Amino acid sequence: MEEHDEMACPQFQHAVELIGKRWTGAIVREFFQGATRFSAVRDAIPGMTDRMLSERLKELEAEGIVGRTVIPETPVRIEYGLTPKGRALLQALEALGQWASTWAEEKTPAGRSPA
Amino acid sequence: MEEHDEMACPQFQHAVELIGKRWTGAIVREFFQGATRFSAVRDAIPGMTDRMLSERLKELEAEGIVGRTVIPETPVRIEYGLTPKGRALLQALEALGQWASTWAEEKTPAGRSPA
Repeated sequence: MEEHDEMACPQFQHAVELIGKRWTGAIVREFFQGATRFSAVRDAIPGMTDRMLSERLKELEAEGIVGRTVIPETPVRIEYGLTPKGRALLQALEALGQWASTWAEEKTPAGRSPA
Repeated sequence: MEEHDEMACPQFQHAVELIGKRWTGAIVREFFQGATRFSAVRDAIPGMTDRMLSERLKELEAEGIVGRTVIPETPVRIEYGLTPKGRALLQALEALGQWASTWAEEKTPAGRSPA
């Protein structure tokens, strides 16, 4: 039998709260797919404003999930990208995303209709 | 390049919110490890009251993650267990738990101290 104690630890709760925030999953995915610029991420996610993206990026940077590189050109260019920690998170989230899409319809084994 | 659109879908958000609730991960883990009785799960999770466990079990039943069997003895016996959907969730959560425990220390690549 495997150990599942990771799921009870504060780090696990923290990770779940982090990714549970709106847009976070989508932003991480955009970087994984190769986006590097603020505008590219914003344009790829309908309904997310500059302000929301900016907030999320600060959080993801503080968590070490997204890295930020300042390129000293005129005007200054800023590039974003997943850190190794961020790429590992995406792989873990993929499993949860698969679960959600596979089982979404099978909500109630007792035959009650889904809400 | 793989597709990661699952992570933007409402089902994904719903799954994350569900498992983000306190105790849910620990409860699911207890059932996976073979617990079948209310009291066994309660005793295995320090700090969780009967009322909290009861609430979580109702949610997990409504989601089709935990199944409940009434055994017509005197007194009536009730057994709980993971559904196939619940077992699949545990596998998905395991990846996230691994990520959390592996990367917990590497919070800030820029050298800021963790909160």
